[in-house]
Amino acid sequence: MDETPFGDDSLHEECGVFGIFQRTDAAAVVTLGLHALQHRGQEAAGIVSFDGSQFHVERHSGLIGDTFTKQSVLERLPGSSAIGHTRYATSGGGGLRNVQPFFAELSAGGFAVAHNGNITNAMTVQRELQRRGSIFSSTSDTETILHLVATSAGRLFVDKLIDALSRLEGAFSLVGLSSKKMVGVRDPLGIRPLVLGEFEGSLILASETCALDIMGATFVRDIAPGELVIITEDGIESIFPFQARRPRFCIFEYVYFARPDSNVEGRNVYDIRKKIGAELARESHAEADIVVPVPDSGVPAAIGYAQEANLPFELGIIRNHYVGRTFIQPTDAIRHMGVKLKHNANRRILEGKRVVLVDDSIVRGTTSQKIVQMVREAGAAEVHMRIASPPTRASCFYGVDTPEKGKLLASRMTIEEMADYIKVDSLAFLTIDGLYRAVDEPERNRMMPQFCDACFTGDYPTSLTDQDGTDNVRQLSLLGGAG
Amino acid sequence: MDETPFGDDSLHEECGVFGIFQRTDAAAVVTLGLHALQHRGQEAAGIVSFDGSQFHVERHSGLIGDTFTKQSVLERLPGSSAIGHTRYATSGGGGLRNVQPFFAELSAGGFAVAHNGNITNAMTVQRELQRRGSIFSSTSDTETILHLVATSAGRLFVDKLIDALSRLEGAFSLVGLSSKKMVGVRDPLGIRPLVLGEFEGSLILASETCALDIMGATFVRDIAPGELVIITEDGIESIFPFQARRPRFCIFEYVYFARPDSNVEGRNVYDIRKKIGAELARESHAEADIVVPVPDSGVPAAIGYAQEANLPFELGIIRNHYVGRTFIQPTDAIRHMGVKLKHNANRRILEGKRVVLVDDSIVRGTTSQKIVQMVREAGAAEVHMRIASPPTRASCFYGVDTPEKGKLLASRMTIEEMADYIKVDSLAFLTIDGLYRAVDEPERNRMMPQFCDACFTGDYPTSLTDQDGTDNVRQLSLLGGAG
Amino acid sequence: MDETPFGDDSLHEECGVFGIFQRTDAAAVVTLGLHALQHRGQEAAGIVSFDGSQFHVERHSGLIGDTFTKQSVLERLPGSSAIGHTRYATSGGGGLRNVQPFFAELSAGGFAVAHNGNITNAMTVQRELQRRGSIFSSTSDTETILHLVATSAGRLFVDKLIDALSRLEGAFSLVGLSSKKMVGVRDPLGIRPLVLGEFEGSLILASETCALDIMGATFVRDIAPGELVIITEDGIESIFPFQARRPRFCIFEYVYFARPDSNVEGRNVYDIRKKIGAELARESHAEADIVVPVPDSGVPAAIGYAQEANLPFELGIIRNHYVGRTFIQPTDAIRHMGVKLKHNANRRILEGKRVVLVDDSIVRGTTSQKIVQMVREAGAAEVHMRIASPPTRASCFYGVDTPEKGKLLASRMTIEEMADYIKVDSLAFLTIDGLYRAVDEPERNRMMPQFCDACFTGDYPTSLTDQDGTDNVRQLSLLGGAG
Amino acid sequence: MDETPFGDDSLHEECGVFGIFQRTDAAAVVTLGLHALQHRGQEAAGIVSFDGSQFHVERHSGLIGDTFTKQSVLERLPGSSAIGHTRYATSGGGGLRNVQPFFAELSAGGFAVAHNGNITNAMTVQRELQRRGSIFSSTSDTETILHLVATSAGRLFVDKLIDALSRLEGAFSLVGLSSKKMVGVRDPLGIRPLVLGEFEGSLILASETCALDIMGATFVRDIAPGELVIITEDGIESIFPFQARRPRFCIFEYVYFARPDSNVEGRNVYDIRKKIGAELARESHAEADIVVPVPDSGVPAAIGYAQEANLPFELGIIRNHYVGRTFIQPTDAIRHMGVKLKHNANRRILEGKRVVLVDDSIVRGTTSQKIVQMVREAGAAEVHMRIASPPTRASCFYGVDTPEKGKLLASRMTIEEMADYIKVDSLAFLTIDGLYRAVDEPERNRMMPQFCDACFTGDYPTSLTDQDGTDNVRQLSLLGGAG
Repeated sequence: MDETPFGDDSLHEECGVFGIFQRTDAAAVVTLGLHALQHRGQEAAGIVSFDGSQFHVERHSGLIGDTFTKQSVLERLPGSSAIGHTRYATSGGGGLRNVQPFFAELSAGGFAVAHNGNITNAMTVQRELQRRGSIFSSTSDTETILHLVATSAGRLFVDKLIDALSRLEGAFSLVGLSSKKMVGVRDPLGIRPLVLGEFEGSLILASETCALDIMGATFVRDIAPGELVIITEDGIESIFPFQARRPRFCIFEYVYFARPDSNVEGRNVYDIRKKIGAELARESHAEADIVVPVPDSGVPAAIGYAQEANLPFELGIIRNHYVGRTFIQPTDAIRHMGVKLKHNANRRILEGKRVVLVDDSIVRGTTSQKIVQMVREAGAAEVHMRIASPPTRASCFYGVDTPEKGKLLASRMTIEEMADYIKVDSLAFLTIDGLYRAVDEPERNRMMPQFCDACFTGDYPTSLTDQDGTDNVRQLSLLGGAG
Repeated sequence: MDETPFGDDSLHEECGVFGIFQRTDAAAVVTLGLHALQHRGQEAAGIVSFDGSQFHVERHSGLIGDTFTKQSVLERLPGSSAIGHTRYATSGGGGLRNVQPFFAELSAGGFAVAHNGNITNAMTVQRELQRRGSIFSSTSDTETILHLVATSAGRLFVDKLIDALSRLEGAFSLVGLSSKKMVGVRDPLGIRPLVLGEFEGSLILASETCALDIMGATFVRDIAPGELVIITEDGIESIFPFQARRPRFCIFEYVYFARPDSNVEGRNVYDIRKKIGAELARESHAEADIVVPVPDSGVPAAIGYAQEANLPFELGIIRNHYVGRTFIQPTDAIRHMGVKLKHNANRRILEGKRVVLVDDSIVRGTTSQKIVQMVREAGAAEVHMRIASPPTRASCFYGVDTPEKGKLLASRMTIEEMADYIKVDSLAFLTIDGLYRAVDEPERNRMMPQFCDACFTGDYPTSLTDQDGTDNVRQLSLLGGAG
Repeated sequence: MDETPFGDDSLHEECGVFGIFQRTDAAAVVTLGLHALQHRGQEAAGIVSFDGSQFHVERHSGLIGDTFTKQSVLERLPGSSAIGHTRYATSGGGGLRNVQPFFAELSAGGFAVAHNGNITNAMTVQRELQRRGSIFSSTSDTETILHLVATSAGRLFVDKLIDALSRLEGAFSLVGLSSKKMVGVRDPLGIRPLVLGEFEGSLILASETCALDIMGATFVRDIAPGELVIITEDGIESIFPFQARRPRFCIFEYVYFARPDSNVEGRNVYDIRKKIGAELARESHAEADIVVPVPDSGVPAAIGYAQEANLPFELGIIRNHYVGRTFIQPTDAIRHMGVKLKHNANRRILEGKRVVLVDDSIVRGTTSQKIVQMVREAGAAEVHMRIASPPTRASCFYGVDTPEKGKLLASRMTIEEMADYIKVDSLAFLTIDGLYRAVDEPERNRMMPQFCDACFTGDYPTSLTDQDGTDNVRQLSLLGGAG
Repeated sequence: MDETPFGDDSLHEECGVFGIFQRTDAAAVVTLGLHALQHRGQEAAGIVSFDGSQFHVERHSGLIGDTFTKQSVLERLPGSSAIGHTRYATSGGGGLRNVQPFFAELSAGGFAVAHNGNITNAMTVQRELQRRGSIFSSTSDTETILHLVATSAGRLFVDKLIDALSRLEGAFSLVGLSSKKMVGVRDPLGIRPLVLGEFEGSLILASETCALDIMGATFVRDIAPGELVIITEDGIESIFPFQARRPRFCIFEYVYFARPDSNVEGRNVYDIRKKIGAELARESHAEADIVVPVPDSGVPAAIGYAQEANLPFELGIIRNHYVGRTFIQPTDAIRHMGVKLKHNANRRILEGKRVVLVDDSIVRGTTSQKIVQMVREAGAAEVHMRIASPPTRASCFYGVDTPEKGKLLASRMTIEEMADYIKVDSLAFLTIDGLYRAVDEPERNRMMPQFCDACFTGDYPTSLTDQDGTDNVRQLSLLGGAG
């Protein structure tokens, strides 16, 4: 059933993007940036470079550090401007075809685009475009953007781009590259992050600040929700082509997706996570001897919890960092052994102790079940599970790979039932207002929520056109490519 | 300079096509057919199958027998209808992207197409389509056909197809596959071959009859020039959608491209080649002791020559069949050794003999030079070169990979100069009328030539729209694919 | 200069071993065990299985989870007994040839052996064997053991094995497999660990207890220094074939090599590391605001330090776990950027703070230099470096990949010079007696040290025969193998 | 049953060898030589070079032109002396381990050896060596030679080599390379060929003269049966270390193995094959219209037959040269179609004709059956099969891959029964005396046969020690190598 360690029972950001304009070794710099964004997508990556006359593309599955750092790969990406993309999954259709950035030779010239987020009306638009004769080569919503630009009646490239963007619904932080320009856009709600940086005079667009830090680049500012920036030899121009709306940044970026050393929308992620832990300690105290994180994502909240509760912080669970994404449990017999590929409990620490166990979220609940069982078998006297976010009750349609709603434990059970299911002595989630407090808001504004928190509340800030349709099954067009 | 043995100094057919409709193991049958057509393209191949609900595609570089015969590859091609394509070259842009068949999901449903020939206005049409917003994924003229179908205003699929075909100039023998139909088309002049076969009740389309023989299928008839056949569950329908024109089949198919055991347009290729040899013996007698072919392509003409001239036929040159297409001469020192990778002269046969050396054609002349030098070094007393075709003076734009005109030896030199250049005692080409006689015509009809013989005469039977333009440089769109 | 992140400036255990006797899916179980031992060797691994009549071998470079979990690999390893080996490096000669276990068909039958440690007279013995006609296929000291068994005059297999072992000097924890037996041996000093476990009735030999935990196997006992255990269908037999000596287990296993959740020679590694941190806090107090570990290896000592010093423990440095071992800095320009591939400082945590920075050891000093610079650039007010071990002053010849002595920073500089070199406000190492106290000894017994601490003291507990010779250059024999 | 086209129903020479001493780009020259010897082994090849201080080895499966011509491969083979080996099969044990040349570092220095032939007491000697402690890494008889040299009590390298050779029985044409010398040896009977050549001052050893021709090297002389040549900087020395015996060269080399353009033991192979055809025409006349070879091996004999019988020589069967060794008939249905992967009959040539069909030999008879059926289905009125050798009745133990005796058609049937089995109108083999006449002997000398003709007569000229034993099953030692 569960192919990966503890059942791939977590949420996954689907993408990170990075671009640099006019800088020697552009593709090598993008490689560094994508490496720093690897946590936003581990399965495949792509880079498009422009060398002054031609565009070049490379797409590879695997980690950046194993693929794009090869001399031979970088030599196939010459040029002084480049954009890149790292991606969670290639499974589920099309293999490397769906790996971004996408590039097309339009009548207006070449244009490449990389995208973090999800266009919620992509399939609907695609069917329209097919009816007028467009041929699609992938199932990616990003290709839809290219076709919208290609078929726009706009006169200039920027007109066409704005025309195309105005057709899109959903979450999108885009980086684009033409022969003359690098562009960056965030959707009107600014659901996904995108920052502007500067490295020795060259401008950078990146999903997170940690991608600037890796090379010593300077953080300039966040791209604003609804902003389109156009970077040329002459500098940077800012346009707000969409109707203004109140921003709603994804609050889960703070809980889990973003890297702890990134600053996102002005806040430090590690700092927020410690505050989340402290809120949690205040909201749901437990009589306990030690605080133990589920590594690695639970660590900052556990530190915050331990400091607030004045309890010792202990690594009672050790993580094996050598688990590749492909660790298939090889035989049925092995599968039934309940092996501990990723985590091991440290009996000497846990034995006889009342343990506060801190994790970032509960998705299907299978991981929590196994972790708790492991901690109990290692001799813990009591297990008090504390979750650094509210119950995850709804699917995300904005670029996060969530199971369908019915598979989310919190959509099926009360907290008491969940505690029973994962067999803990007590279970508590952070409240939604506690979460908002941790990000320095007084509370969630029910009328005008300050963030996208749809996964906790089911309150989706955009229309979900494709979800309302009925027949979403499509065959991938197989033009070109290795199939 | 010349990377391949004797400088790749020959002409190459660019493609073979094969399709079968409604037959168990369709892809495996196509594999056999393509194997028999391997001489029409050795570098890469592709197959598209349809399994009743989905289309599947596989593209591989290398020989059919090394790629498509693998169980794992065939398992990815389920279904009872399939078409395939074998291709001369993947070099020069796009890698596997340019390997056919091409497939696209159109609004009318999926459609795959494989093509032998060359569309002489493909780039012109492509630019038009790009202006209206079509995005191309390859540099192949075949993709243009798909986009024409996709953007046609026709109502039914067949209407769209005819609409698209009517836009095409040049040579095309196409095989197409939709969810309901397999279609076959030859251009109005019928420049490239296409035959209809039948195998245990299932209809086949193939470039040559040898692809029927390999499986014991029956030859039904040639598809006629300008004919479109539509094969469905209900049988075969024949349409002539183009304005009627006098056919002009490529006469070089007889000289070199087609396999000797194929029957092409009613004539047996081996038989024609022997007749060519006999014509050559009659036209340009040489006082000699033995007739020696340049293997393998010169063999049938040499047999015909020897029988007509009543001279012994001898294998004075041995060919090493293990020369792969990739035999790079590894070092400069080696390159200058003038090594005999492909052919070796047999001194015991040649020593002291007056030799008639028979080859099919002279392209750049470099091979002939080396072969003659080798024969002389092996002790031949005299070398009389006899060429089984007229001088090749013009490029082909109908699907044959010819060097540009200026590199064709016969476009730069008289026959005497050529004899001098390749250092033979005498040199003679078959006359154009001799060639027509060998294919059972009384002579070439100057006013209405019976064949396309543009490579000998420069008389191109179609317009060459793309050649008239100036800027033919294009960047390949890089949508999807492994790059 | 430094090819890997921060210059591969750390020590590496060279091997982990694991074997199981008579258990369904033996090779799959070994795969799990090796996965848990991955920290003892990340570059390559091998497994030999015995199926009742034949031995089978697989060797692969890369992580266990990426190679040995494949169905196809495990199918080539049938049988109910298997031993495996994971290895730090394949670089430096022979590629997969040097990957263990080694197997040979001896006249007495097949025998496979896997080895953790280093035979300090292997080359000397190898030259002797070559003089009598033995042909070596690898440069591995492990092959020497096989040849010693093969050429022993002993009558029975166990006699031959004891005969061979008696010739060896150095550190060795061996696991061997013949058609009837699995054997385990530790050298007389017990320098490397080896434990006996039991899993549902089948006996296991493994380098560390974490390899038992992963599958829920039971820890039985440590194999004793100088003990040879022989496991057959009839059970386990214990022999002490060597002259008895006072054991000297490698104390660095506690500092760095072993996994924190393992219990080694009766002590829990995480627990020892926390005690080390506490000793360090007591020995060398610093006025500071926060304690920050160099992740991951410095974490337990930092927790111990923080608890003892009553300072907040903070993740001021974030580690990027996606750094593969192959992250080559792609271009010169990039190399000079001083990029932070593996670690990033979190400015919001460090800014304005007096930081105690805890790391496990200093090898060349280059990593420490860069880490400190990074922490300072992130705004730390003061940096007080605390090292959880004494200065590393001498090379290890017992299976750890240490730079030669001259490259060890502590062999060239005083502590003050080192503090200056790495630019810290203060630098302190744990004392050797502090380290002994952390492992529950009152102090180091100068006359009869309780552990091997040669890397700190230069006091080698065995002779180093090969090191005393002069000509150690050898050509690898190239019998068989893919070269 | 039969996986390859027409069932791999032919005999295979197992090896070709080539070496050059002191010449720039030695490995590149060996690559050329092996390419010319590709017909003696198509599945794998190896080269060992010596660069003045180190030996280097590369082994690859596949054709020389696809593997050893790569720049990257040749760069790993530096040095001015090199020897190489091409090999028929890697199947049946050990993969690339069994690919020669073999190299070992002996106490006397490095030594590499490549071998054409078969040592008939190799296994017996190997068991002896194992008893005294030698460990084998392959199942190849060639490794036995290395171990004999390694364990010889001889003082100098040449003494050791002669000592080792004196232990061998069977057929061996060896090329060896040490740091100072290249050596060549033929067994006392000279069963396999070996020639000495010279290329711009550098001496060459090669299996056949065609390997000299490819680079324009000069043929010096055949190495004599029983001769050992030692090539050093000072020139060439010749030793006859074996007891003198009457030579018995393999007569089948003329019939099938050697390349037609080679001169073997003073005779031209193509010339002999034509004489064989002429003898056949004289011995067994058939009333017929045309002579058709089974291509390619039957061609020279068919030319000889046609000239002698004064009948037209026609290519009535076309061979598809693109059949790789791996053309697996992909599905059961396809397998039962009786597809013509390799040969196709040309109906226009054969229809209504009385055909003399010439092939080199009949092994299992399955190919002949299919070829005849194909010729009949193409309309031949009569089929008279003429075989250019006597019936193959016994296995070869001297380096040719023959089926066991019971599977040889001629060992189970009379000629009449065979004619019936393959369904021909008449069948005739060349007589043994006819074959001797074709090689310019008056007849076979029954008392002292001039050639090894064991495959026709069962008269083996050496003892077959290994065949007399009972237990030949061995496990390959798995020291080193990728397994």
